[in-house]
Amino acid sequence: MHGIFNPKKVAVIGVSSKATNLGKNIIGNLVEFGFNGVVYAVGPSGGMIETKPIYTSIDEIPDEIDLAVIITPAHTVPHLLKECGLKGVKFAIIETAGFREYGEKGSNYENEISKIAEKYGIQFVGPNCIGVINLENGFCVPFPRLKNNIKKGDVSIVSQSGGVGLSALNLLSNEGLGLNKFVSIGNMLNINAEHVLEYLIDDDGTRIIFIYLESMGDGRRLMDLAKRSIKPILVFKSNIGELGQKIAMSHTASLTSDDKVVDAAFEQSGIIRVHDATELGNNLKILELPPMKGKNLAVISRSGGHAVLAADACELSGFNLAPFPDSFLREIEKHFRASVIKLTNPLDLGDLFDLDVYGQIVEKTLQLENVDGVIFLHTSLSDKENLVTRELLKRIMVMSKKYDKPVAFYDSASAEEINFLKQNFSFPIFTKVVETIRALGMSHKFFCHFETIEERGKFKNYKVDTQAVRYLLDTVKKEKRNLLLSESLTVLEHYGIKSIEGKLALNADEAIEYSKKIGYPVAIKVIAEQISHKTDVGGVQLNLRNKEAVSTAFDDMMNQINASYPNAKIDGVLVQPMVMGGREMIFGGRQDAQFGPVVLLGLGGIFVEIFKEVQVRVAPISFSDAVDMVNRLKGSQILKGARGQKAYDVKSIVEMLIRISQLLIDFPEIAELDINPMRVFYEAEGCKALDARIILNNS
Amino acid sequence: MHGIFNPKKVAVIGVSSKATNLGKNIIGNLVEFGFNGVVYAVGPSGGMIETKPIYTSIDEIPDEIDLAVIITPAHTVPHLLKECGLKGVKFAIIETAGFREYGEKGSNYENEISKIAEKYGIQFVGPNCIGVINLENGFCVPFPRLKNNIKKGDVSIVSQSGGVGLSALNLLSNEGLGLNKFVSIGNMLNINAEHVLEYLIDDDGTRIIFIYLESMGDGRRLMDLAKRSIKPILVFKSNIGELGQKIAMSHTASLTSDDKVVDAAFEQSGIIRVHDATELGNNLKILELPPMKGKNLAVISRSGGHAVLAADACELSGFNLAPFPDSFLREIEKHFRASVIKLTNPLDLGDLFDLDVYGQIVEKTLQLENVDGVIFLHTSLSDKENLVTRELLKRIMVMSKKYDKPVAFYDSASAEEINFLKQNFSFPIFTKVVETIRALGMSHKFFCHFETIEERGKFKNYKVDTQAVRYLLDTVKKEKRNLLLSESLTVLEHYGIKSIEGKLALNADEAIEYSKKIGYPVAIKVIAEQISHKTDVGGVQLNLRNKEAVSTAFDDMMNQINASYPNAKIDGVLVQPMVMGGREMIFGGRQDAQFGPVVLLGLGGIFVEIFKEVQVRVAPISFSDAVDMVNRLKGSQILKGARGQKAYDVKSIVEMLIRISQLLIDFPEIAELDINPMRVFYEAEGCKALDARIILNNS
Repeated sequence: MHGIFNPKKVAVIGVSSKATNLGKNIIGNLVEFGFNGVVYAVGPSGGMIETKPIYTSIDEIPDEIDLAVIITPAHTVPHLLKECGLKGVKFAIIETAGFREYGEKGSNYENEISKIAEKYGIQFVGPNCIGVINLENGFCVPFPRLKNNIKKGDVSIVSQSGGVGLSALNLLSNEGLGLNKFVSIGNMLNINAEHVLEYLIDDDGTRIIFIYLESMGDGRRLMDLAKRSIKPILVFKSNIGELGQKIAMSHTASLTSDDKVVDAAFEQSGIIRVHDATELGNNLKILELPPMKGKNLAVISRSGGHAVLAADACELSGFNLAPFPDSFLREIEKHFRASVIKLTNPLDLGDLFDLDVYGQIVEKTLQLENVDGVIFLHTSLSDKENLVTRELLKRIMVMSKKYDKPVAFYDSASAEEINFLKQNFSFPIFTKVVETIRALGMSHKFFCHFETIEERGKFKNYKVDTQAVRYLLDTVKKEKRNLLLSESLTVLEHYGIKSIEGKLALNADEAIEYSKKIGYPVAIKVIAEQISHKTDVGGVQLNLRNKEAVSTAFDDMMNQINASYPNAKIDGVLVQPMVMGGREMIFGGRQDAQFGPVVLLGLGGIFVEIFKEVQVRVAPISFSDAVDMVNRLKGSQILKGARGQKAYDVKSIVEMLIRISQLLIDFPEIAELDINPMRVFYEAEGCKALDARIILNNS
Repeated sequence: MHGIFNPKKVAVIGVSSKATNLGKNIIGNLVEFGFNGVVYAVGPSGGMIETKPIYTSIDEIPDEIDLAVIITPAHTVPHLLKECGLKGVKFAIIETAGFREYGEKGSNYENEISKIAEKYGIQFVGPNCIGVINLENGFCVPFPRLKNNIKKGDVSIVSQSGGVGLSALNLLSNEGLGLNKFVSIGNMLNINAEHVLEYLIDDDGTRIIFIYLESMGDGRRLMDLAKRSIKPILVFKSNIGELGQKIAMSHTASLTSDDKVVDAAFEQSGIIRVHDATELGNNLKILELPPMKGKNLAVISRSGGHAVLAADACELSGFNLAPFPDSFLREIEKHFRASVIKLTNPLDLGDLFDLDVYGQIVEKTLQLENVDGVIFLHTSLSDKENLVTRELLKRIMVMSKKYDKPVAFYDSASAEEINFLKQNFSFPIFTKVVETIRALGMSHKFFCHFETIEERGKFKNYKVDTQAVRYLLDTVKKEKRNLLLSESLTVLEHYGIKSIEGKLALNADEAIEYSKKIGYPVAIKVIAEQISHKTDVGGVQLNLRNKEAVSTAFDDMMNQINASYPNAKIDGVLVQPMVMGGREMIFGGRQDAQFGPVVLLGLGGIFVEIFKEVQVRVAPISFSDAVDMVNRLKGSQILKGARGQKAYDVKSIVEMLIRISQLLIDFPEIAELDINPMRVFYEAEGCKALDARIILNNS
């Protein structure tokens, strides 16, 4: 990747002097951005451009070339790339569109290009991209003609879409944020998002990374890279629904992915997901400040209304407005005409108009131990205040650094003044109260991730009987069939997950026979795919103590079900030993196309069916991941003993999740694992699987 | 209100030539904004200002005065207002702070002011506000010194906070949106938000109204006004949580309100609620376009990436990307080099670079019957395109109007060019894809509200026995006690809400005795406040067919409960005739401090306890309100017969809601009504209350 960003001798292929020529724009950009290397132009018509000759082929250039930028029709690219190879060019940026995303013909060109690149050892970006920028050396080769109005800074951008990449550049420029590097990766035929990310993580000039993705390539690799990055990585992942899928396919040939898994993977690896440009802009700005290390925010506001907005937003973002200590308030009272300002947090500056005093108050606030960050809500009362506001901003910049705490500076002023501040200060200027506090929330969340990353990197390994499972799975595979219920339960047992076996009875007599074998009391449950709420229709009959009870219960069940689900196909009833207490949950796992094995947990019944409340994590999961899965389940208060009820065995739930994770990692051939239901008992009493299904990849 | 916005002769009281004087700013603003009336300055020190003498009292002014703007210390205001009264001034704007929001002394000043205003017939805005603007006549009296950089337009602003009001002005100015009128209403001692709203609804210059509120005054009045407004009303209601409450109280003396009721009230009356400045800005912009009348959006994009983002956002906003008809595509193919553009919706313009053709495509798209609106996603490839882009924009402006469909124009270009477009075109310019589509969603929702407002204004009145209820409630009130369960059920019966009475048994023997009276089979249910999930712990025993069954069930129940809730206080068990089938729901109502009677509906059990899933509406509710309550319940698919199960009697649920609404309206003394549970049976089988509680206001 270094060669892509730092060439010394560049050939731009596809240049002419025509007004609409895009290669011309590339040459123009290199000149305007002051590229510190040598540039040669190549184009079949020859001629001159920017006081340079246009060579009719790369071969003609009387110099060695490090990198070629190609922007010629798709069908010419294979041949031109071969010429580059023969010339000894090792890096290329292929901006041309019309490849895989246009159909079969384009795919064929791509295959040719890959072969040529491999043969000549060429690494390349694209095709179907708008190019690369490195503001460190002025290397700027996008085909749109850019203006040099972007500050040099520490944000680097990787975008699968050129258009979205350009929007991000405009956003940086508009917010006065500084760019370091930019890559439009397009079809990612050779260099992909993970390659660029790996480079940027170690790149000295880059401190914040933004990635726009329409598809996940190697999700697991992305996670691994993100986990070892101390730099914040923001990702805007689109193509999340059915409508987006079709156009994404024809745009960058991107397949959709399971968005819930993407969410989990990002969170597990500390990737900050953004959902719109507003969130992106505010997050980038907040990341220019020191991190919000705790939950205690101080709000200092010139307007009471802004203070109210801020307080609401703090509550929604989970921040505390820690009360200021008495000593601090007395200090303020002494020095700062306290009769007119309201001494609470939020601190409403009332009719105190001295901006010098504002600076002193911000500094005193930052000195407080129970303040992790400050949002300063400024309102300009007239243009006459612009100069003193700028002085205040300078002081705040210094203070935020000195105390290593974020001071989010919000200003309500004329557009001209806001723009002046953004363009002339290396400090983020916020103009929206609620959005700023949301961004501070992100800063805190990222900091916490960073603090706990070591803990969450520890993976427990239970002692399990891998060999027995290996043997069982191999047998099943040989017989080209699915695992039976009993085999699935055996696999689980080998991994320390206990179960209660039941027997499927097709009629009342069978049910009575099995009940006798199992021993009374028993439970019987209807097995029928179409019946979603078994208990609602008498489909679960518990605590049956003798054969009469089983018989009556069986008949009752069928009558009730016939009344409610006249058309349901009933496969039989499951007879199980009566297991008292506990509640049913759903545990599971599956292989995700992009991220590999994932673990699932849900409270049963309507939680899953109606609320789609399932927690997902990419395996392997750590202890804290598993705890987090339980805690984040809506309804988890039920598990912990809501309203005086006894708590369930959460420890065991956590252990079972980790064991499932271990099983999925050990046996990637397990395509799907469902434990539905798992009976979870009261504290210290464990869990037992009542039903399980394992589906193998090749079965 | 007319006199507040349209004075001819104005006195500004509190003016001096000191640099920090705020009255001076007001005079400056009136001059800068070209006020078309006469202005007099008043201040105790006398002197000159803007070539005018400063009179030492209003009495000295040798002219009649329509309106006084007062910005002097709080303790001087009562006296000065009295002077105004004596002078015959009929309107005032009191900008001074330090009243009720500062404590008791301030409250006393407010009382004095109110008395004086009443005596002299003065209507006034404030106190504790930043003033009023009317761009129609240049009347501009906020005390911050403003620049005349706001276009005159059709948006009017009402803000309870001066600071937030100023932010809104900056937002308009920044987005190139036009202001009509502005009022900072502050403490609303005399003129309140509803007064201003009523005026603006009929005001010719105003087409869109934005209100910032920290408290609800007369919520019901606000609803009534909004319901009769054809102009969109956007409200940012803050002070929604505990953190905001304290500061709001000391800021504008605002009490918090039940946010769920506020949400319902706004939706019922077509008020568009906004939650942050981003949403406000985008909504204001979209409302400048024709409404989005249907769900079919066409996306036309220069960048494939933007098209993917747009498609995702369409899915989230519930829009369809209706496929373009073949005839349309053939037309495009014929004229517009179709080989390079992808003929789907979203339409990716690919490498078609002719902006004139873009205009033709937009027009052809607008002509399609199955297209209700267009989002055009433009990306500027170089500054050279600025002129043609402006031409395209002019054409789009005309087209959007001609076809009466919104064309949201998104542009990704340099900040300078975007600003130029915003300031020089009377057409909204969008710069964020996802946010723009969300705003189009709001436009569609507002249009639908508007379409259905008549239907939702029809209130059914069932024949009920009001007199019987009147008599019963009066009796209870006389006896200064609460209604008994049986009385509550009687009230419901008089309003056509049927019930199943049960009997409370304190032990197994009583349960058996009552069961015999009621007739077998019976159900018994534990009555204990602390037990939230009765069914989980055997607390509900159904279908008991004889006295042995009741006895065993009673013991079983107590044993299981003791195991799970060792400390629960058990009040007894309710013995009821066995009612087969159906499911339990919660119906209810209460008096809201700001909005009066509200009706509640929830699915029982965990839906309410864990998910807090309750639908609330302000009474009276129409048929469609009631239907909407059912449909918007999470889990409503259960009611409608999910997965082949029989549907419950939704018609009856709807009827019961309307009957409860009628009861609450007829008897405002009902502070709280709870029907928990109401048993809802299968289709056409109705509902029956199993338990009910009515609490009266004065009991």
